[in-house]
Amino acid sequence: MEKQSVGIGLIGLGIVASQVARVLTEKANLLAEQAGCPVVLRKIKVLPQDMSRPQVAEMDAALFTTDDDQFFNTPGIDIIVEAIGGEQPALEYLRRALSGGRYVVTSNKEVVAKHAAELLSLARENGVELRCEASVGGGIPLISPFQHDLVANEIKGIYAIINGTTNYILTRMDKDGLDFASALGQAQQLGYAEADPTNDVEGIDAVYKLAILASLAFKCQVRPDDIYREGISRLSARDFRYAREFGFAIKLLAIAKQSDGSLEVRVHPVFLPQDSFLAKVDGVYNAVLAEGDLVGKVILLGEGAGPLPTSSAVVADVVQAAIDVRRGTDGVGHWRIAGDVALKPMAQVETRYYFRLSTADTAGVLAQIAQVLGDHKISISSAIQKEADSATQAAEIVLMTHPAPESAAQKALAGLERLSVVREVSNLIRVED
Amino acid sequence: MEKQSVGIGLIGLGIVASQVARVLTEKANLLAEQAGCPVVLRKIKVLPQDMSRPQVAEMDAALFTTDDDQFFNTPGIDIIVEAIGGEQPALEYLRRALSGGRYVVTSNKEVVAKHAAELLSLARENGVELRCEASVGGGIPLISPFQHDLVANEIKGIYAIINGTTNYILTRMDKDGLDFASALGQAQQLGYAEADPTNDVEGIDAVYKLAILASLAFKCQVRPDDIYREGISRLSARDFRYAREFGFAIKLLAIAKQSDGSLEVRVHPVFLPQDSFLAKVDGVYNAVLAEGDLVGKVILLGEGAGPLPTSSAVVADVVQAAIDVRRGTDGVGHWRIAGDVALKPMAQVETRYYFRLSTADTAGVLAQIAQVLGDHKISISSAIQKEADSATQAAEIVLMTHPAPESAAQKALAGLERLSVVREVSNLIRVED
Repeated sequence: MEKQSVGIGLIGLGIVASQVARVLTEKANLLAEQAGCPVVLRKIKVLPQDMSRPQVAEMDAALFTTDDDQFFNTPGIDIIVEAIGGEQPALEYLRRALSGGRYVVTSNKEVVAKHAAELLSLARENGVELRCEASVGGGIPLISPFQHDLVANEIKGIYAIINGTTNYILTRMDKDGLDFASALGQAQQLGYAEADPTNDVEGIDAVYKLAILASLAFKCQVRPDDIYREGISRLSARDFRYAREFGFAIKLLAIAKQSDGSLEVRVHPVFLPQDSFLAKVDGVYNAVLAEGDLVGKVILLGEGAGPLPTSSAVVADVVQAAIDVRRGTDGVGHWRIAGDVALKPMAQVETRYYFRLSTADTAGVLAQIAQVLGDHKISISSAIQKEADSATQAAEIVLMTHPAPESAAQKALAGLERLSVVREVSNLIRVED
Repeated sequence: MEKQSVGIGLIGLGIVASQVARVLTEKANLLAEQAGCPVVLRKIKVLPQDMSRPQVAEMDAALFTTDDDQFFNTPGIDIIVEAIGGEQPALEYLRRALSGGRYVVTSNKEVVAKHAAELLSLARENGVELRCEASVGGGIPLISPFQHDLVANEIKGIYAIINGTTNYILTRMDKDGLDFASALGQAQQLGYAEADPTNDVEGIDAVYKLAILASLAFKCQVRPDDIYREGISRLSARDFRYAREFGFAIKLLAIAKQSDGSLEVRVHPVFLPQDSFLAKVDGVYNAVLAEGDLVGKVILLGEGAGPLPTSSAVVADVVQAAIDVRRGTDGVGHWRIAGDVALKPMAQVETRYYFRLSTADTAGVLAQIAQVLGDHKISISSAIQKEADSATQAAEIVLMTHPAPESAAQKALAGLERLSVVREVSNLIRVED
């Protein structure tokens, strides 16, 4: 089935889609060499309001359509590239593309995270492939290493900084001593955070990406709802100061790891030792550490989002899909989801903990606190008690514990909050050594 | 051409080859899933003296042969894996394998660095592929990102720490204040350096790896002899102390970068800003930073050598080759060497420089030194003059310069050595900002 050219249909005309169209056009010669035949953009599906965008005026008007049927019925479209984001109508478009025997390339983390299993079996039934390198970590090779380079490995764990917005905010809180609100404001001013930052700061975006990475690495279905999630909005500048005193950095980490025959999947702030590599990943950079039985630790790192890096990944997928179009595919060597996996309930997850408490400034407070932790079999590894603040008459006590199950930590937390000498448990952060 | 199984012939029984044999056997089910059919080890070519190794006793005796013809004539061998290292007889084996229409997987950096162009055209003529992921950076995905993930990019530059032995030695010199000989001795005791460490400490190994990466990234032939090379044996503990004072770390860096329409290729010690990612890559870790026009900076990092990581890369290549055996290949999407490239002569390379000089302890020394540099249009950005050592009556002067061409730096060096007040130019190190 040698072809003279491979045809592309593009859905969307946002910043990523526009950049993809630009690369497909401006780098046509390079891409033809890489794909083994010309890769031709044949149709772009846009919304009516997109037709007034400047990008439209720059391109051949015949390329554009606002009509779904016209788009899907365009002759010679082998690969459909979806870059609109969000669950719907993207999901319907992908279903329609795959059912019609089109290869699909998408940068849409939400739809892949939620519907990978369905979309992959639809691809298989129709003899095509779904590729989504751009859905996690922009241009950093994060999907393909699990599909190619690490296939001989049993993956032990994935530890990822995969949200540039939160990593930028945490870096500013750490380096400049800002509180969360100020750092968020700065990120918004710079365009790193959206007006409504919920998806980023509450860890929802990281959950989508972890669902994809975990499904891929562990060949099982991990749904966003399976993943324990906690955002960064409760962190304060004080937590960063204490973290430094104990030799740690604070990062929002996405973790998927094998643990006693089940899988732990969780996204939350963590204390990371300052000398670990992930602790040194600052600003909008993303990084994924994968640990395999053969390869040991491998870290893949780069600038995360942004239209240029994302287009790098989308177009790389297009080239691979174009090679598949020419050669045919049998789905081998791609993403296989073998079924569900036993997930470890969060209550059974074991880590060390950092507690920060605001207490009354009286004698015996630390003894009472230690008693509550001891009642739940949590032992303290070190403690800092700061001199009392004379204005508020409150003292601050910070504890680092030895490993204990989450259930014990939560019970201890409730117990501490019931103590009359404890004004507030200001934070509880897990430690990943 | 669907096949019931894909057959492997393995050349060698050293630590890497033994580990590859072990993975192919112990992970047969996993690999069959990934490859789409069983991947069967059919024959191992060993030397007569290998037959007494314990690995031989553990395996079916019929697997082994010491006879080249018997090995190459074994029926059902589709892929030949070479893991003996060194230029010969590996090159002859690879030529024979490719000429006979066998796919080749090799971990041999020397033979690939020196003969990639010949071997790739031999592969193309015979409708097969040469894969060499394990030849650079052990299990870290370093070859395949350039073949797949970054294909839409024009690569601007590669900056790599790709020799674990030297990085371990430099880390010990930096952290523990050791001199080169002691750090080397420690590396030898730990098995990180060989009894004859020349290949590692003089940068020869790094040159082979850079030749491969540069040929791949820039799609041109870069031969080991094209690459400027300088090892780490002239570095002293003092250089590390001064580097720290100026805010730098010292690394042996392999650099290939576009520069005014030509390519700079060089391996030598460099000053790197302490806050750059590569400066933080310590111990036996390897890291490659690639910069592309779309993707920006991507860093791939991990433990370099060692039989387990290397087997991870070899077996990943075997799985990809097995998929090619089943599906056929037309060479597209792999490694294309388009021809030669204009290389920038080292004399024209521009960097900043660090000079360390031992001088007489008299007035006006710094003025004379500045005069020599000024004569060659090199301007000084900062200087440290240490108090004289009363025992030797020598002073030490350390200079950091603004950018200047290498030719000017070398002429200035010669000029400084001619000054009667200069006892010795102890070191000249290039700075990569």
